[in-house]
Amino acid sequence: MQRTSLAGMHCSVARTLDIIGEWWTPLIIRDAFVGQVRFDELQRSLGIARNVLADRLATLVAHGILERRRYDERPPRDEYVLTQKGRDLFPVIAAITAWGDRWTAGEAGPPLLLVHEPCGQAATVRTTCDQCGELVSLDNTSPTPGPGA
Amino acid sequence: MQRTSLAGMHCSVARTLDIIGEWWTPLIIRDAFVGQVRFDELQRSLGIARNVLADRLATLVAHGILERRRYDERPPRDEYVLTQKGRDLFPVIAAITAWGDRWTAGEAGPPLLLVHEPCGQAATVRTTCDQCGELVSLDNTSPTPGPGA
Repeated sequence: MQRTSLAGMHCSVARTLDIIGEWWTPLIIRDAFVGQVRFDELQRSLGIARNVLADRLATLVAHGILERRRYDERPPRDEYVLTQKGRDLFPVIAAITAWGDRWTAGEAGPPLLLVHEPCGQAATVRTTCDQCGELVSLDNTSPTPGPGA
Repeated sequence: MQRTSLAGMHCSVARTLDIIGEWWTPLIIRDAFVGQVRFDELQRSLGIARNVLADRLATLVAHGILERRRYDERPPRDEYVLTQKGRDLFPVIAAITAWGDRWTAGEAGPPLLLVHEPCGQAATVRTTCDQCGELVSLDNTSPTPGPGA
């Protein structure tokens, strides 16, 4: 099936999914966040076919989310390091994690906790306004056309 | 290609993507957030094949993210209303939007602004700690096994 490109939509959600929406990609980024950055580590962690993984990594490198670094020459071995653009995906993965902890973890509870080092507590992330610091939700926001509309 | 199920992974990111990771799904949720909830509206907005849209909506209904409501009988017409589980995806879409505004919008700027009604400002969302209220980032957090590990 021919996949439509979302990049042309005037929507930051669509444009972002065009880059990271592919099914495996957020899991690769999740692994990179916890330091699993070598090809073989990723392949083992995800149980993904090597050619599929190579393809997804190449896309992330092309979009400037990961940077490929050779860490061994004999045999040649690469690792994939997050750029600032990639590190900036943290809130996306954190929001996905928080939703999953609430709605998919069940009675067993969250598989992973996120310790916020400045306060030392296991944090559940909240989405707040950069202007006033208060909670942002579907109920208290309204979209309005921006400069790029 | 047979798609592996991610639901069995002990990871809230994987489990969530198993539900909402499919390519069109976050765009359907985005549309539902702005009140586009009728089948024909969604079909027009997304430019998606009717059978694909029907399939994605059925999955979201099965997972309790949308609820189907008949709004017209002759001819029969349905709309899809977000449940609490669906509304709780707001931080995910908001985080995707913020990343896209920063990294994909270019010089034109964000296509859409999000007005935070309590303060009246166009908000860029931040990810903060529910315990201390401070910013949460990749640099100041560390994952640790949770009860469901």
